[in-house]
Amino acid sequence: MPVFRKTVETFTAGAKTLAQRYFVAPEVFVEEQSRIFSKQWVLVGHQSQIEKTGDYFVSEVAPSSDSGVTGLGPESLIIIRDKNDKVRGFYNVCRHRGTQLKEDGRGHASVIQCPYHAWTYGLDGRLIGAPHMDDVPGFDKADYSLHAVNLGLWEGFIFVNLADKPTPLEEWFAHLAAKFSHWNLAQLRSAKRIAYDVRANWKLIFENYSECYHCPGVHPALSKLTPYDSAENDLADGPFLGGFMPIMKGKSLTMSGNACALPVDDVNAADHARVFYYSIFPNMLLSMHPDYVMVHQLWPQSPERTLILCDWFFHPDAFERSDFHPNDAFEFWDMTNKQDWHVCELSQKGIGSRAYQPGPYSQRESIPAAFDREYLRQMKRGSSKTKLD
Amino acid sequence: MPVFRKTVETFTAGAKTLAQRYFVAPEVFVEEQSRIFSKQWVLVGHQSQIEKTGDYFVSEVAPSSDSGVTGLGPESLIIIRDKNDKVRGFYNVCRHRGTQLKEDGRGHASVIQCPYHAWTYGLDGRLIGAPHMDDVPGFDKADYSLHAVNLGLWEGFIFVNLADKPTPLEEWFAHLAAKFSHWNLAQLRSAKRIAYDVRANWKLIFENYSECYHCPGVHPALSKLTPYDSAENDLADGPFLGGFMPIMKGKSLTMSGNACALPVDDVNAADHARVFYYSIFPNMLLSMHPDYVMVHQLWPQSPERTLILCDWFFHPDAFERSDFHPNDAFEFWDMTNKQDWHVCELSQKGIGSRAYQPGPYSQRESIPAAFDREYLRQMKRGSSKTKLD
Amino acid sequence: MPVFRKTVETFTAGAKTLAQRYFVAPEVFVEEQSRIFSKQWVLVGHQSQIEKTGDYFVSEVAPSSDSGVTGLGPESLIIIRDKNDKVRGFYNVCRHRGTQLKEDGRGHASVIQCPYHAWTYGLDGRLIGAPHMDDVPGFDKADYSLHAVNLGLWEGFIFVNLADKPTPLEEWFAHLAAKFSHWNLAQLRSAKRIAYDVRANWKLIFENYSECYHCPGVHPALSKLTPYDSAENDLADGPFLGGFMPIMKGKSLTMSGNACALPVDDVNAADHARVFYYSIFPNMLLSMHPDYVMVHQLWPQSPERTLILCDWFFHPDAFERSDFHPNDAFEFWDMTNKQDWHVCELSQKGIGSRAYQPGPYSQRESIPAAFDREYLRQMKRGSSKTKLD
Repeated sequence: MPVFRKTVETFTAGAKTLAQRYFVAPEVFVEEQSRIFSKQWVLVGHQSQIEKTGDYFVSEVAPSSDSGVTGLGPESLIIIRDKNDKVRGFYNVCRHRGTQLKEDGRGHASVIQCPYHAWTYGLDGRLIGAPHMDDVPGFDKADYSLHAVNLGLWEGFIFVNLADKPTPLEEWFAHLAAKFSHWNLAQLRSAKRIAYDVRANWKLIFENYSECYHCPGVHPALSKLTPYDSAENDLADGPFLGGFMPIMKGKSLTMSGNACALPVDDVNAADHARVFYYSIFPNMLLSMHPDYVMVHQLWPQSPERTLILCDWFFHPDAFERSDFHPNDAFEFWDMTNKQDWHVCELSQKGIGSRAYQPGPYSQRESIPAAFDREYLRQMKRGSSKTKLD
Repeated sequence: MPVFRKTVETFTAGAKTLAQRYFVAPEVFVEEQSRIFSKQWVLVGHQSQIEKTGDYFVSEVAPSSDSGVTGLGPESLIIIRDKNDKVRGFYNVCRHRGTQLKEDGRGHASVIQCPYHAWTYGLDGRLIGAPHMDDVPGFDKADYSLHAVNLGLWEGFIFVNLADKPTPLEEWFAHLAAKFSHWNLAQLRSAKRIAYDVRANWKLIFENYSECYHCPGVHPALSKLTPYDSAENDLADGPFLGGFMPIMKGKSLTMSGNACALPVDDVNAADHARVFYYSIFPNMLLSMHPDYVMVHQLWPQSPERTLILCDWFFHPDAFERSDFHPNDAFEFWDMTNKQDWHVCELSQKGIGSRAYQPGPYSQRESIPAAFDREYLRQMKRGSSKTKLD
Repeated sequence: MPVFRKTVETFTAGAKTLAQRYFVAPEVFVEEQSRIFSKQWVLVGHQSQIEKTGDYFVSEVAPSSDSGVTGLGPESLIIIRDKNDKVRGFYNVCRHRGTQLKEDGRGHASVIQCPYHAWTYGLDGRLIGAPHMDDVPGFDKADYSLHAVNLGLWEGFIFVNLADKPTPLEEWFAHLAAKFSHWNLAQLRSAKRIAYDVRANWKLIFENYSECYHCPGVHPALSKLTPYDSAENDLADGPFLGGFMPIMKGKSLTMSGNACALPVDDVNAADHARVFYYSIFPNMLLSMHPDYVMVHQLWPQSPERTLILCDWFFHPDAFERSDFHPNDAFEFWDMTNKQDWHVCELSQKGIGSRAYQPGPYSQRESIPAAFDREYLRQMKRGSSKTKLD
């Protein structure tokens, strides 16, 4: 059982929201993609989504070309379980003519074969078949393996990193070591995904997630289950932020208000009376309820648009039981998510105005303020000629 | 009754249409937004559209971000009638986190409350409620009123001006003082709005409105009611342009050809045999028929797209009478509008060609030529480093 | 009967696919439009599509403004047969206010009249009517003919050239003189057009057309009719590339596998056992089957999008015969086209990745390699300050 270090809130009196350009300027968006999303470990899924050898899914980890940002294409990756049960990631690009190997989605494959000229790769990425290439002088299959992407697992979640020499995953998550281990996160199984196309900057989603000041007006149903002013934060600075809110024992965030499945963590009775909300910079929101875990993946598409993938996970033994009512959770959060996206979209609209000025945060917005600090820290790092302030 | 000063037409022999870039170049569009639409008084509505205290409508007075023009967002404004019956305008942006306060449309409100964290403003824009902000050291509600926009009324029509120190409204309209006063424009009531999304530059709409040379081919029904060559212009230079065309007494521009409502102006019998067409730079077209007034608002969205709001107004006493047949007018002008937008869209397409060159205006196009002169005057004014010619 | 000079394949060992920027960079796209599509003879149709005096069609020979490329509009042209039976081409722009004269499509006209102010042009482009313009001092109709575009015919196909002083059409096609003359191409009649909007760079379409290495996997039905490894190329370098594949006598590329119409070329029995595929730089693909000719027109819209018009032509005597089953050919190629576009779209997606590198061509891809060489030659020509390599 974790000891929740009750952190002194590092609320800076006078903290204000970010300047307009951080939400609307294409230049800032390009910088973010380069300094954050191409440098940090980003969440792409969970190991339960590729259970057996040859199971794979495709993940797009960079903005689509719809973003209108010149030179930045979508980075499509194949995440696949190999013959040694190891999870691997490859750029979704044939080494012959550059063709995308697997289209969006999920599936199972014994080898990775290009649909164009049938070049064939093993699950470890090595080129094992290339018709008619033996006639080409100097051609050696060993030179044409699929390009691998850095990949690592944390608590069963799959992260990738596009940097050449990334910080090791273990080092990045060292601060969280053991904090979540009793939650069985690695063993959970995915039950549902909903994708949302939200017309708001990705940082507005984080800022929205990180406070419950908005809950009374925006989420009347949620506010009945967990009082909006009951949050306690135990991570209040840095890339990992959040805390918990109390909930009545046996209750959960569902339409009925009752737990809808076997507890995900059967060790720790105290946690069954809490809901935990953590943001993992830069693209993961981790919400742990007594009976299920919800995870949001955030994928910025343009300064004004974010694709959000929302997954629900349950205890592997929950699925077959008669007390398994997952729709009760899906419906609750689908409703709540949409309420959040709506106010985020309204904020995006207002922030675009020439009348917008950074506004004052209240003390109930200390986590959004901490997120902004971390964001600015990461944007400034390693930049000698930045104009960002 | 106004004396129509029959102006000598200031037609400049050799006048030609504007150069291509004025219709297609994003740079020119940005300049227009900056020098004209952010500096001049622009029409947003009529006082009859917010009759009672707390009635409001939302107006977007600048190009939407769909325009693709970096850094220019939509300027959403709340136009509202306060407790002293005064019409006020506010930027639609909460002073807390920048959230848009009111979504597109119209409504009634006793206060203006942000949907995100419930900050609450009075109808005069003052912040009167901000939960939990009392804990923030140095926070003073008085510092966080809504940002007001310059607003004024002319003949009952509501105009706003985004400039810091605009020309006073009365000064701007001084030239028109009393010219329209007998028309009862301030007392009229709005009966209908149609919005058109037109794939043409906004200046093509003005040029189209300002001549009837095109009427025989484009508007066969209109040409039967008012002969295309009968126009007399009494405002032929400057920001206000136009004149009138005769119509048979008791007739009007309707599907049936007959007046469809009580006369808007019951004083002046002579005017009942005329239709008046005036353009009010830069976004108003004012068409006065014996029995109704039609007003177009033009909102440039990009070099190649204009949003047009068309409103019909009637005498306040007309609505309850048995001789009130407003559809007769709506249908006539909806048909005629669409005929106009179609040729404007064809012009936009042709002007984009590398073969386009400015073409010669005829003497029947003296008002379009005058509009072009005024436009160029305004684009040049106050610019030391302009490359426009 | 042509002598097919069996060319020694000029396959360059080590040839690789083009660098990424040629497929995604807006700057390269602008250069291509300027150096290739605005300089070379481009296919717009076939003379059988405007059979009689006054028949016309509209062709858009440059990227649409949807491409997002500033300053490049669509070049809409009117291709029309005049009173002397001559095919002419005009920019689709009225000389008065720039209005597009004819909307997309085809039709018949005795004169070309502007829909806006009724300016009227003869089929030879001369202005013959301009209402009210006689009052304009110095106005002379002779100064306002429609702008003509360079136009020429090759084997009955209509080509235009936007350059001021283009290479004469005969000179450009000199290398092909008589090669195709026995095919009756000029006499064929068009039976069908399908338009495809393909999310891939235009060069990927050429490269795809120019090899059958992909046929086994992509086109199972085609591969049964013509073995994928049977191609012989007789044009292997320069702007005209291609060759032929054997097919069983009496057979053709149709759903049924049988010829579906009278032979297009009744002179040469040997050709009835071959299908010929030629690419004519920069926008024509010419596929000659025993019983029909298929022609693709390629129109780049953006780096990532190409509009493809596919026409099927038959012997003029074929249409009335009982053995005319054109759907058998349309369906076969519509299916095959879509298979090709799909892998081209997958290539576009993969090439946008940061992991893409030029990959090695096999000897079965000598024609794509030759196309790339020709393309680079044309992109470099006449450029002193190019950064292209």
